[in-house]
Amino acid sequence: MSKQQIGVIGLAVMGKNLALNIESRGFSVSVFNRSPEKTHDLLGEAAGKNLHGTFSIEEFVQSLETPRRILIMVQAGKATDATIEQLVPHLDQGDIIIDGGNAYFPDTIRRNKELEAQGFRFIGAGVSGGEEGALKGPSIMPGGQESAYELVEPILTAISAKVDGEPCCTYIGPDGAGHYVKMVHNGIEYGDMQLICEAYQLLKDVVGLDEKELHATFAEWNEGELDSYLIEITKDIFAQYDKETGKPMVDVILDAAGQKGTGKWTSQSSLDLGVPLSMITESVFSRFLSAMKEERVAASKVLSGPAAEPFAGDKKAFIENVRRALFASKIVSYAQGFAQLRVASDEYGWNLKYGSLAKIWRGGCIIRSQFLHNITEAYEKNPELKNLMLDPYFKNIMTNYQDAWRTVVAEAVKRGIPVPGFSSALAYYDSYRTERLPANLLQAQRDYFGAHTFKRVDKEGVFHHDWIAEASAE
Amino acid sequence: MSKQQIGVIGLAVMGKNLALNIESRGFSVSVFNRSPEKTHDLLGEAAGKNLHGTFSIEEFVQSLETPRRILIMVQAGKATDATIEQLVPHLDQGDIIIDGGNAYFPDTIRRNKELEAQGFRFIGAGVSGGEEGALKGPSIMPGGQESAYELVEPILTAISAKVDGEPCCTYIGPDGAGHYVKMVHNGIEYGDMQLICEAYQLLKDVVGLDEKELHATFAEWNEGELDSYLIEITKDIFAQYDKETGKPMVDVILDAAGQKGTGKWTSQSSLDLGVPLSMITESVFSRFLSAMKEERVAASKVLSGPAAEPFAGDKKAFIENVRRALFASKIVSYAQGFAQLRVASDEYGWNLKYGSLAKIWRGGCIIRSQFLHNITEAYEKNPELKNLMLDPYFKNIMTNYQDAWRTVVAEAVKRGIPVPGFSSALAYYDSYRTERLPANLLQAQRDYFGAHTFKRVDKEGVFHHDWIAEASAE
Repeated sequence: MSKQQIGVIGLAVMGKNLALNIESRGFSVSVFNRSPEKTHDLLGEAAGKNLHGTFSIEEFVQSLETPRRILIMVQAGKATDATIEQLVPHLDQGDIIIDGGNAYFPDTIRRNKELEAQGFRFIGAGVSGGEEGALKGPSIMPGGQESAYELVEPILTAISAKVDGEPCCTYIGPDGAGHYVKMVHNGIEYGDMQLICEAYQLLKDVVGLDEKELHATFAEWNEGELDSYLIEITKDIFAQYDKETGKPMVDVILDAAGQKGTGKWTSQSSLDLGVPLSMITESVFSRFLSAMKEERVAASKVLSGPAAEPFAGDKKAFIENVRRALFASKIVSYAQGFAQLRVASDEYGWNLKYGSLAKIWRGGCIIRSQFLHNITEAYEKNPELKNLMLDPYFKNIMTNYQDAWRTVVAEAVKRGIPVPGFSSALAYYDSYRTERLPANLLQAQRDYFGAHTFKRVDKEGVFHHDWIAEASAE
Repeated sequence: MSKQQIGVIGLAVMGKNLALNIESRGFSVSVFNRSPEKTHDLLGEAAGKNLHGTFSIEEFVQSLETPRRILIMVQAGKATDATIEQLVPHLDQGDIIIDGGNAYFPDTIRRNKELEAQGFRFIGAGVSGGEEGALKGPSIMPGGQESAYELVEPILTAISAKVDGEPCCTYIGPDGAGHYVKMVHNGIEYGDMQLICEAYQLLKDVVGLDEKELHATFAEWNEGELDSYLIEITKDIFAQYDKETGKPMVDVILDAAGQKGTGKWTSQSSLDLGVPLSMITESVFSRFLSAMKEERVAASKVLSGPAAEPFAGDKKAFIENVRRALFASKIVSYAQGFAQLRVASDEYGWNLKYGSLAKIWRGGCIIRSQFLHNITEAYEKNPELKNLMLDPYFKNIMTNYQDAWRTVVAEAVKRGIPVPGFSSALAYYDSYRTERLPANLLQAQRDYFGAHTFKRVDKEGVFHHDWIAEASAE
């Protein structure tokens, strides 16, 4: 009996769609699921396709050509460890396990080390694009042994999305690099969505756009430098109406955001690494705040806002200002995300290629956009670029758009409309370009109450000043 | 030979000062240090005092009356575990270990459980106030078995700071509660310091105050509702000059902030608990940004700011506006910190008494202030208060100060002066009091690309809309 080229364990929607995607590119696939019903269902659905159903782990493993390529698509966490544990006794040296779930990157690092010590290879692959991406072409971020990647590359690049003929899949780096990059991708996605929401609220509450005008505005924005999947679907969303009430769909949806934790992980990692990821973290906090719906409703009856006049300025100019504020803030968000990747790459020894990451995000995934071309170009010109905002293309946008950005934030602040994303991004821009921040006072305070010492502006060394004695001598 | 009432292990400055403090209140103290030199030094220094030097763990333990009270003052982390491990074989059932270091609260929870399983008791005690506080009267936050607290209470309350005759020490709650509360205290300290720094930069850069005027301004502020230790030492700092250069001390100190990690932990915990701790987290990120000194200096030559006119308004009015912005932002910071304590208390089963926490922070510690009286009062009136801003006293301040706050943030934004703390606090205020945030659009996006479902405003249940089909039918 001939052996299959790859196996997929876990046939929930993501696993099933990836299996179908792989098969559609001409590879033979063994499939296995803990409960056999899902396997039977898939085989029935995919009759005539080159899918080989198996009903025990042993049968599954034995059905694969060696070195084996096994893609795990089970729930991140304990289920992944349990699946690996079941597989291991049946594997041969050099076999490759690929975890395509949303694993927490320290788990991926641990699994890679543990399996390598036993003679196996392990790839943690971030897969972005949702159910549809899995079926038709996701963006794939595989990390692990490079020798293992070479053996799975033909399959992964074949099933990935393509942009300008190039696959949205490349080798990311050792052990946890792939899942880390996917995590930051998701953090950036949080940021993009938050900024769009703030723009929406400003357009709705300051200049009173209705859903038709919002649709038209986002349609127009999608033709320019904001051209992206998220702006495109936002445009679509405003054109859809609730069949029951006839109201715009957005108006019947509760303003309480959910989340699955990858944004939170990105922020927690930034805190560990000492990277100021303020914009994305504000996005995570904004989701928390939105979810406190009842508390907000109660607070809205107690806490007052400012007395604001109706908007009397140029509506069209304000809309353009919001667009510029959105784009400038988005650049900050990506600048922070890529800065975090740079620090993580050094910390974990991943040797990440930033331009390639932007490249494989251009298709398949949720944050795909035209704008990623400019990021790729920036890193191609200067692979050591310390911050995206320093690249001439982005620098010019910041220079030209900052007046609009400041106008929008000031207007929102005066009117009591929350813009945590726009304003934290602006605070980052202004902090980053400020030669002298007030942290000298902070260091003085720390030295005063805790003798934590300080550095001086005029000479090397570490100093302590006897503040308390001098204060009492005063 | 008579036994001593308490033992202190670890005679670095904090342990030594606490031992001296305890002895000065009339308790007999055994001391032990890994290297005997420190013990000899202390005994020499404290000749004639009721300190009993010991030179082996066994001798140390045997010198104490039972149930033993042993205060560990060693480095947080491995050294704490190692010390506990050395003690355990010599202890009797019911003996009490008190960890007075800055332990990470999950470690304290673990140690409490592990020692309880062996029949011992364990108190994790946050101790705030630095070296001087340790000697003269710190704020103490002990968590662990209540039966153990009762046995150490006479000593801990005796050595703690006193305000209006009341000790700045109270039982916080089970296992990790004390170290958690100390951690949040430190996060709040980060917030207070950041806000003072932003006020300093505005006063210096917008209205051009020199160090003498800054000294006078902070002296005046310290007479009013901002009356606090940190404002007081800020006032002192501006009055001190560098002996070498004759310049104000603040001007010779490098603007690169250090940190020890407790602020970071507070933010990471907020992310785990789903609490929007934006103001304190911006403070942590601002320290990171300040530490990127070289990168900022380079960026300051590339990235431009706005063209701003010299300040032409009323200088005195602006200074008062900054004071109000600082106070309103500080209220947000405490509101967020206490909201986090409330969620943590539920999550970990600690049954925290918020009013008592504010009470024991009124003396001994770095964030001590008049303002904490108002927090205690707010929780005494309403122990179930969901958010500090909803208390009438604080609500009135927010109402009355918001115009000043908005003016300052808008002015800073227009002038390119970073105010991450002021603006994130304002965004929180405005988000928290907004009945309808734009997260309805965010939920629409999540449902569009990931079928994540949404709730509706008009009925119960969980819904999915077929966005993609409708978009293609358009």
